[in-house]
Amino acid sequence: MISTGGGRHRDMSSVTSHMSISLDGFVAGPNQSTENPLGEGGMRLHEWVFATASWRSQHGREGGEGGPDSDVAKRVAEGVGAHIMGRRMFGGGEGAWDESWTGWWGEEPPFHVPVFVLTHHPRAPLRMKGGTSFTFVTGGIDAALTQARAAADGKDVAIAGGAQTVRQYLAAGKLDELHLHIVPIVLGGGERLLEGVGDPELRPVEVVASPSVTHVRYRVIR
Amino acid sequence: MISTGGGRHRDMSSVTSHMSISLDGFVAGPNQSTENPLGEGGMRLHEWVFATASWRSQHGREGGEGGPDSDVAKRVAEGVGAHIMGRRMFGGGEGAWDESWTGWWGEEPPFHVPVFVLTHHPRAPLRMKGGTSFTFVTGGIDAALTQARAAADGKDVAIAGGAQTVRQYLAAGKLDELHLHIVPIVLGGGERLLEGVGDPELRPVEVVASPSVTHVRYRVIR
Repeated sequence: MISTGGGRHRDMSSVTSHMSISLDGFVAGPNQSTENPLGEGGMRLHEWVFATASWRSQHGREGGEGGPDSDVAKRVAEGVGAHIMGRRMFGGGEGAWDESWTGWWGEEPPFHVPVFVLTHHPRAPLRMKGGTSFTFVTGGIDAALTQARAAADGKDVAIAGGAQTVRQYLAAGKLDELHLHIVPIVLGGGERLLEGVGDPELRPVEVVASPSVTHVRYRVIR
Repeated sequence: MISTGGGRHRDMSSVTSHMSISLDGFVAGPNQSTENPLGEGGMRLHEWVFATASWRSQHGREGGEGGPDSDVAKRVAEGVGAHIMGRRMFGGGEGAWDESWTGWWGEEPPFHVPVFVLTHHPRAPLRMKGGTSFTFVTGGIDAALTQARAAADGKDVAIAGGAQTVRQYLAAGKLDELHLHIVPIVLGGGERLLEGVGDPELRPVEVVASPSVTHVRYRVIR
């Protein structure tokens, strides 16, 4: 790890986002659909994390590799006290809720902390196994952030995605850190992360490198 | 510096390219013109190098800062035995040559080695002060590479730019290394580096970090 001397924003819990991004700037491949929410080739953005021992352990699986990528995945998970995600990331289609849909992740989702889902359609909270809860927030990004901060109990609030939700928080000046996992692939099309976010001032404060991915933690300067 | 164990391609002189790129993937800003060849905001991609002691020294200037960025700029310059550039990077407009144009860089250009300029219009070579020569190649990218390799005398051949020329060599499978200087700015528009280059396999082999820029050297796998 190289620390470039920026230190850590620690006066309150940070609002952070961890995104795997291709060298040409995509966080999902082309032709995203309900069947293929990451788009064509989009799964390649996440192969680095699926290969790590820490990710596998978080998801109740054995095996995987140690090393810098696994350390990054571990620190990311340990630092987060609550997540915020867009409705499309939670899934279940558009419009009023089909209440049989409880997310992509089964009975015991891998978050293990409260998750706040941005939606226009009210729904009662879901309490899942393993510490994950889903709370549906209809009041917009500020309301979700207020609730997530309270739930995070001093830990970080992570904007889990999708890209549009991350862009909303970044453009609104609500993001403290953007942690990019720069994957050495060229997707050639898909959904870009950094489009329509204005001209934020970012400072790389920590870099971790492996043969699979380059992890750069950017502080958003205000 | 973090070496990720890739070692260095050293059986022959490498074909390399060093590009400063924004976080949203641009190597020049929007609205490039003869007056503003880097486009709007494009100069911000290069501020990191202008601030270094080694770049300033290469350009006959005093001052500047030491540190990791300066070390990178020094190693880049020392490793290169010949450059290849597109006609637009050399400048002087389109069509047949105005022979009064000898490049943007004055009597003593900062290359100090042979430079091969891709063009459709023949022109006699130029010998400049300080070891730079400009040789005009009308036979295409392979012919230029053959000549540059011979001139580089075992050192690297650097594809200096513009982006289109780098893309041509990358798409043709002629590039051994792509060294990206990832600058933490969002340009929002301009010329992208990695568009129309297919799906190259890249492996990060070395990372250098500073508060201004993240330098990642990618090996192109064949």
